[in-house]
Amino acid sequence: MALLKAAIIGGGHIADQNHIPALKKLADHVQIIAICGRDIIKAKALAEKYDIPQAFDNTEDLYKICDLDLVINCTPNNLHYEYTMQALKNGCHVFCEKPPAMTAAEAHEMDALAKEKSKVLAYNFQRRQTSEYLLLKKYFQQGNLGEVYHIKANYLRRRGIPGWGNFTNKTIQGGGALIDLGVHILDLAMGIIGYQAPEKIVANIHDFIGRTGGKGLKGQWDPEKFDVEDACFAHLTFPGNKSIALSCSFALNQKEEEIINLEVFGSKAGANLKPFSIQTEIAGELADITFPHLADLDTQLKNTEAFIHAVLGKESNIATAEEGAILQEIIEKIYLSAQQ
Amino acid sequence: MALLKAAIIGGGHIADQNHIPALKKLADHVQIIAICGRDIIKAKALAEKYDIPQAFDNTEDLYKICDLDLVINCTPNNLHYEYTMQALKNGCHVFCEKPPAMTAAEAHEMDALAKEKSKVLAYNFQRRQTSEYLLLKKYFQQGNLGEVYHIKANYLRRRGIPGWGNFTNKTIQGGGALIDLGVHILDLAMGIIGYQAPEKIVANIHDFIGRTGGKGLKGQWDPEKFDVEDACFAHLTFPGNKSIALSCSFALNQKEEEIINLEVFGSKAGANLKPFSIQTEIAGELADITFPHLADLDTQLKNTEAFIHAVLGKESNIATAEEGAILQEIIEKIYLSAQQ
Amino acid sequence: MALLKAAIIGGGHIADQNHIPALKKLADHVQIIAICGRDIIKAKALAEKYDIPQAFDNTEDLYKICDLDLVINCTPNNLHYEYTMQALKNGCHVFCEKPPAMTAAEAHEMDALAKEKSKVLAYNFQRRQTSEYLLLKKYFQQGNLGEVYHIKANYLRRRGIPGWGNFTNKTIQGGGALIDLGVHILDLAMGIIGYQAPEKIVANIHDFIGRTGGKGLKGQWDPEKFDVEDACFAHLTFPGNKSIALSCSFALNQKEEEIINLEVFGSKAGANLKPFSIQTEIAGELADITFPHLADLDTQLKNTEAFIHAVLGKESNIATAEEGAILQEIIEKIYLSAQQ
Amino acid sequence: MALLKAAIIGGGHIADQNHIPALKKLADHVQIIAICGRDIIKAKALAEKYDIPQAFDNTEDLYKICDLDLVINCTPNNLHYEYTMQALKNGCHVFCEKPPAMTAAEAHEMDALAKEKSKVLAYNFQRRQTSEYLLLKKYFQQGNLGEVYHIKANYLRRRGIPGWGNFTNKTIQGGGALIDLGVHILDLAMGIIGYQAPEKIVANIHDFIGRTGGKGLKGQWDPEKFDVEDACFAHLTFPGNKSIALSCSFALNQKEEEIINLEVFGSKAGANLKPFSIQTEIAGELADITFPHLADLDTQLKNTEAFIHAVLGKESNIATAEEGAILQEIIEKIYLSAQQ
Amino acid sequence: MALLKAAIIGGGHIADQNHIPALKKLADHVQIIAICGRDIIKAKALAEKYDIPQAFDNTEDLYKICDLDLVINCTPNNLHYEYTMQALKNGCHVFCEKPPAMTAAEAHEMDALAKEKSKVLAYNFQRRQTSEYLLLKKYFQQGNLGEVYHIKANYLRRRGIPGWGNFTNKTIQGGGALIDLGVHILDLAMGIIGYQAPEKIVANIHDFIGRTGGKGLKGQWDPEKFDVEDACFAHLTFPGNKSIALSCSFALNQKEEEIINLEVFGSKAGANLKPFSIQTEIAGELADITFPHLADLDTQLKNTEAFIHAVLGKESNIATAEEGAILQEIIEKIYLSAQQ
Amino acid sequence: MALLKAAIIGGGHIADQNHIPALKKLADHVQIIAICGRDIIKAKALAEKYDIPQAFDNTEDLYKICDLDLVINCTPNNLHYEYTMQALKNGCHVFCEKPPAMTAAEAHEMDALAKEKSKVLAYNFQRRQTSEYLLLKKYFQQGNLGEVYHIKANYLRRRGIPGWGNFTNKTIQGGGALIDLGVHILDLAMGIIGYQAPEKIVANIHDFIGRTGGKGLKGQWDPEKFDVEDACFAHLTFPGNKSIALSCSFALNQKEEEIINLEVFGSKAGANLKPFSIQTEIAGELADITFPHLADLDTQLKNTEAFIHAVLGKESNIATAEEGAILQEIIEKIYLSAQQ
Repeated sequence: MALLKAAIIGGGHIADQNHIPALKKLADHVQIIAICGRDIIKAKALAEKYDIPQAFDNTEDLYKICDLDLVINCTPNNLHYEYTMQALKNGCHVFCEKPPAMTAAEAHEMDALAKEKSKVLAYNFQRRQTSEYLLLKKYFQQGNLGEVYHIKANYLRRRGIPGWGNFTNKTIQGGGALIDLGVHILDLAMGIIGYQAPEKIVANIHDFIGRTGGKGLKGQWDPEKFDVEDACFAHLTFPGNKSIALSCSFALNQKEEEIINLEVFGSKAGANLKPFSIQTEIAGELADITFPHLADLDTQLKNTEAFIHAVLGKESNIATAEEGAILQEIIEKIYLSAQQ
Repeated sequence: MALLKAAIIGGGHIADQNHIPALKKLADHVQIIAICGRDIIKAKALAEKYDIPQAFDNTEDLYKICDLDLVINCTPNNLHYEYTMQALKNGCHVFCEKPPAMTAAEAHEMDALAKEKSKVLAYNFQRRQTSEYLLLKKYFQQGNLGEVYHIKANYLRRRGIPGWGNFTNKTIQGGGALIDLGVHILDLAMGIIGYQAPEKIVANIHDFIGRTGGKGLKGQWDPEKFDVEDACFAHLTFPGNKSIALSCSFALNQKEEEIINLEVFGSKAGANLKPFSIQTEIAGELADITFPHLADLDTQLKNTEAFIHAVLGKESNIATAEEGAILQEIIEKIYLSAQQ
Repeated sequence: MALLKAAIIGGGHIADQNHIPALKKLADHVQIIAICGRDIIKAKALAEKYDIPQAFDNTEDLYKICDLDLVINCTPNNLHYEYTMQALKNGCHVFCEKPPAMTAAEAHEMDALAKEKSKVLAYNFQRRQTSEYLLLKKYFQQGNLGEVYHIKANYLRRRGIPGWGNFTNKTIQGGGALIDLGVHILDLAMGIIGYQAPEKIVANIHDFIGRTGGKGLKGQWDPEKFDVEDACFAHLTFPGNKSIALSCSFALNQKEEEIINLEVFGSKAGANLKPFSIQTEIAGELADITFPHLADLDTQLKNTEAFIHAVLGKESNIATAEEGAILQEIIEKIYLSAQQ
Repeated sequence: MALLKAAIIGGGHIADQNHIPALKKLADHVQIIAICGRDIIKAKALAEKYDIPQAFDNTEDLYKICDLDLVINCTPNNLHYEYTMQALKNGCHVFCEKPPAMTAAEAHEMDALAKEKSKVLAYNFQRRQTSEYLLLKKYFQQGNLGEVYHIKANYLRRRGIPGWGNFTNKTIQGGGALIDLGVHILDLAMGIIGYQAPEKIVANIHDFIGRTGGKGLKGQWDPEKFDVEDACFAHLTFPGNKSIALSCSFALNQKEEEIINLEVFGSKAGANLKPFSIQTEIAGELADITFPHLADLDTQLKNTEAFIHAVLGKESNIATAEEGAILQEIIEKIYLSAQQ
Repeated sequence: MALLKAAIIGGGHIADQNHIPALKKLADHVQIIAICGRDIIKAKALAEKYDIPQAFDNTEDLYKICDLDLVINCTPNNLHYEYTMQALKNGCHVFCEKPPAMTAAEAHEMDALAKEKSKVLAYNFQRRQTSEYLLLKKYFQQGNLGEVYHIKANYLRRRGIPGWGNFTNKTIQGGGALIDLGVHILDLAMGIIGYQAPEKIVANIHDFIGRTGGKGLKGQWDPEKFDVEDACFAHLTFPGNKSIALSCSFALNQKEEEIINLEVFGSKAGANLKPFSIQTEIAGELADITFPHLADLDTQLKNTEAFIHAVLGKESNIATAEEGAILQEIIEKIYLSAQQ
Repeated sequence: MALLKAAIIGGGHIADQNHIPALKKLADHVQIIAICGRDIIKAKALAEKYDIPQAFDNTEDLYKICDLDLVINCTPNNLHYEYTMQALKNGCHVFCEKPPAMTAAEAHEMDALAKEKSKVLAYNFQRRQTSEYLLLKKYFQQGNLGEVYHIKANYLRRRGIPGWGNFTNKTIQGGGALIDLGVHILDLAMGIIGYQAPEKIVANIHDFIGRTGGKGLKGQWDPEKFDVEDACFAHLTFPGNKSIALSCSFALNQKEEEIINLEVFGSKAGANLKPFSIQTEIAGELADITFPHLADLDTQLKNTEAFIHAVLGKESNIATAEEGAILQEIIEKIYLSAQQ
């Protein structure tokens, strides 16, 4: 079978560190034939580093010259919509970085166009591919947790405001801790509680520490240029009396340097994601289960492979544009609630 | 100065274990002259045990015969209103068990009558008197936490549904985990975040484990008679962009047997209640502070003493009827939100 | 229903501390009407302490005067046979201390006579009643361990030679560490591996430390009078390619003060008795299960109650004379192998 | 003095990783002049990698062309006998991988021929050269353990069936966990208990997990091709009432990923190999001794050096063919007992 | 043999809690026939409590009326000299509380008079009788430490200023932390380094915390009445290039609530007193030895027994007046150095 | 601005590993134009490795040929004086390794000449630049420790006698543990207690282990050539009743492999250097403060930079020749006291 022809759009860190290496390991199925970045010098450097035949500084030329099967959208958040729409219109399958877009309306449009064009549009939620989360899902799907009715979804850093990139720039990123961290952990929680629109959302966001400054553990940020939230706390209620308590922060006066966890409460058992553990009853006694030998998986490779398999029709899309749109809508409502 | 004359109303466990022993230690200020309980045999037994001159089985006789300064209301939750109102009408100061009443309307009435009668009406929130909470308040009031914007208030048991008493009976108690446990931890959180009505409340309550049965760590409950919530999760937003995430449970599939904690997040520092710790910045570095020598205090004695001092006019009431009414209103709204 | 009439034979420590208190708690079913001990003064003292109507210094008088339903045989090991046989002949059910007897032949005779007389003869293996062992059996019987093919049965003390009693006297006890400690842990292992005669037994016994002397952690023993084994190591092979590795010691140069454990290896899972844990595979991953809330049970009460229930015909005998005879035969063969 | 001329027979992993690097470090004494492997391409690659002048694919040519002093036998277990015998016949000293052979008869023949030819035949028991074992031996030989009467020798893996090589192939390896792991730990135990034939051996072997399949921690094995034992438990009794309890496994439902230990029990003290500790009495008190600064030694280098020194006549052979034959005989008897 | 006739002088806490109970357990050798205390009511109460025939409020009457063999001097420090001298003059053996006296001159006089009168004068250094110290001495005396050249002697409390008694009163006690705590640990160190006059002493004493006040962990002291040292640091050099670094405190800003330790450094090994450990070399490797089963001894009983045995001539005095005088002289010089 | 021109004098380990790499990182300010070492081959090798234009084997040529601004004196201790004096005379600023010199007189001369020449003479006390010590100083200077009255300064190794270099050679080094280790920790203590001459010094030095030999953890030293102290214990009293207890060792029978710590005792709080912690009172309670995120700083770079900044007049000298002279005088007096 002929190899799929792929292009990378966006020549930044995520393309270099995640997507290109993963595609290279899937050389049996896919070939990167072009890379496109606004900075043509950086684009060419990547092309050389990874032996990619062509480099462009605009997508018009890209689509004119290349005959593409799929596109990897590695642009900043505020450009996800534009370049994904364009790719779909050019008949390409798209693997897009998260969050899907800047608004729910955009995300819905992207979903609609993909369906119209019968193309695969998948988002890169690679944290779904850790062995902990895969085990959680399997254990849950086997019915061992019973009815899951509440999840505490936490992605909390003590002083983890990034001192580099655009993470504290609202115009480019669309937000702060919620966009960079909260989206991931919320996506994982939704995978258990069910991907659907919540009935109620209440949320609060804050920026005390971000705007004040202080010790930085991920480089030193500039409080003058900090215009996003450093913390977000929300309660989401879903049909069937299920709820998620979401907490995420770039900076928070907590003891732990970083907490990434789901606390899942079901009628038959509970689970913690990290470190993974199960709390249940066995033979009439309360039992705690730990799994001492979970493997470190290459989550990006597994996620990219899933997208390629969906394109090839071997498996169904596991990170659909519909889910992306639901998630984007929730993000929008969280910010809305926080502003009221 | 003459001793205050007190009566105990309600001859159950809380009178026997908490209130009477505390009053006995305050014999310089107060004398228990009567006890009143529906079961006159139990009332007389307590009278004998604690050397109390008179025992009654109805409050009409009590007020007719005795000239009282104050009343300790130790009745079940569903009788708090009736006996507190009666005591106030009979010109007595009242020290009433929590929660204040069964409805917010009742609690407001009680507050109003106390004010009208110029009597002290205080509720027995004795957990305010632990050395951990006293230190938290002092540290906070000295400004060390800065602006407190979020508190996680947790009172969570794995399998702690009481196998005795009326704790699982909605008619008598008014509710389950929220009424017995949540009220305490919410009261402590309110003491930091500020006692006022929230702007928004979203809540979910559950009863899966309570109605299913299983291993009990506080005696064995009867799932057939369980008609309250075993878990409650709520998000409360207060004026000034402050919020409390309340979680309480009689039974929940978590690892810890019991968690009683406040996680307080302020702009300058954060605090944990139990074990008590502070997370802050000192001399430009992230610092964790622990207090290895906090004392075990006699919280009931300290709370009863505070009430007596308020009656004597030595100190102001530290657990006012106004606070009680605010708390009761929140409880009502939590249940309301959970039912919608 | 009329109460069962019981007599205690043997007025030593085990009667005073274990059997009489247990029977007293079962006063709804059984009444101790007599105690018989060689030292009549001690026997009378116990009778007074526990409000037992009659005390004897010989069993002839006991049986002549009393109309007994059952007898608790609390005599030293070398008298178990004599007094159990006599009791059965006198038409009594018997609850006998372990080990059953001094020889396998005796134990088989005791079993045969009990069957002939249709009386309950049970041995006091009270360690079968810990919550750990009950859970192990339940978990095993539900098939969760799969085929159990090897058990390491360890009851090992570093310097735990008793400095009192007859524990180091072979004539009275019949042996040392194997008789006092090994019998218990071997009995538990047999309960999982299956109560049957082994195909092969190889064993070694030693007395280096016992005869040399040194630091004692359970009182100070006299090496001059030490004529039993201080350690025993044996390998027992059972039909179906199952095996037990038994290790027991009064004194051994190990780090731990005392080890009491079964390590059970099955085809589907493994288990440790103390602290109780399970090692298995769940959802394709290696899993460790712990049970943080196992209760401390009154093992003597549960065991005595089981005997009484067997006498009353409510339940079948759970520590039968047949099992006792199998165990006694194994002990005999262990000593035999060690001497070859 | 002229350099010893050596040939490597067998071009697999053990030659590449262990023997050739060790010999290279001993270049003052020995020179590898040839390598012989069935796969001439692999043999030539190794020759190039390590600068070895000649490569052969058959030993006939090797001995015809080269004038050798010594041979390192790195062939699979089932070829140890053939190539060692051939080397001795060709007048070479031999350093042979363990286990010595496939049968005791072979091992005895090898020993006999080495003696007849006055050549050094040593086996590569490199675990004898860890600092822990060297310390154990020194401490024991100074008499500090007294009379050693029992050793528990454990080499146990939870899920360590190798997913590569011939480890699960009985024809090539001669067995499973006993051959690959048990031989090592038994060899160490024999070094303390005394190298001699046991009086009694009882053993059981199993293959439940190996044939069923499941999670693998050392690659993923194929249960269809698994025809060796995954676990072996044996009790060996030696003259003088000494015994070894041997346990080894590729796969066992235990908590620890891997246990490699000797528990040595002596009349004056006990020792554990890993982590190394001593339990004894000092000044009348029970004492535990640990050694916090034991070095990581290059065990292969030390072992190869010992062989070279024996060849040079500087030291006597420390891993003799006689010991190898005794060990091989024990292995044979363990399997024999397990089959009865 | 006739019982020794003893009197207790001083009716305080130390008599009640330590000395009288110890003497009572030695009733085979000694009989308390009188107690003398300034407060006759308290003296009579103790006499009744312990069944002592006579109580006095002055020693003149005591000696006039009673025929005494020995006296236990339980008076405050500033009266040790007076009552010990008087007792010796009255022909009594004396067991005196530590420190010996208020000045070195007094202590020397006491020693001289005891010798002149041929009476036993012993001081109550009961910490010499812990199993840790006895093991340390035994291990040292067997030569295992080699030459001991430096000891760090620490008796340090974080906030342990006693809130009762005379411990902060210089007139009665003679000093603070050095007198109450330092004397003990210095005495233990001298027992290893050798009881002799030092060649050099440099010392510093402080009272910052004592005079400032703050949290008290042994009751609440009054900083206004605090006129002793709260901390003392000294370096003592002895003949033969040996030295002791003494540190003691009632209050010091350290982490540990209390440290009581000797760190003993010898040429062959080192030792820590509490928890007891040895650091040495064994078989060419660095070794740490711990003793997991040291007993809790009744140190007062053992010390009183040693005095009684000395009086009876069974053993020599183990806490001599000479040692007491040397120690007193050191204390005097420490204060002297600190004032210069 | 023109670059400073620097020369390295001494071509050993400290030049190669510390000074040259640090200067290279400061290439904006300084250029190494020459290196001078007695062994011209080594000097040239370093010159090539670090791209240094010129190499000399004598300083006469160096100063003749090169026009230098500053010199880094990396010579052995016994040459510090000679080459520092020469450099100053040649008009260079000097950054000199510690200890300053072999005698106090030399150190004072060096200080005097630097002042006379108005040149910066700084010593390389790079341990002042750890984040722990910088935090300690900052915390202290903010007044949080109150009055600091005692410091225990410990730099203690169990078996850390260097097996290489000149560390055990008195002629070259000037001493042992005090010179190599003690000087560092004493310097840090002086930075808190105040750099001034002590009023009293008592000290003891030892060489038992160094001269006896044994296990080495930093290579294997030769006891025959060991002529320095392996341990030193001293007490220093400063004006204002402040004191330092200094302990340092190459070899000492202690448990820890290495202790590097200051225990600082102040009137308001105490501190430990490593791991860094504070002990104090907060809000009336005893509090312990830890700092979980202290960074590993490049201490040599920071120290060299400070010297360069001093040369450039940007900051004042932070490791002055005056301090060096004070320190040298203390060292001299410690040895003096130890010899008396």
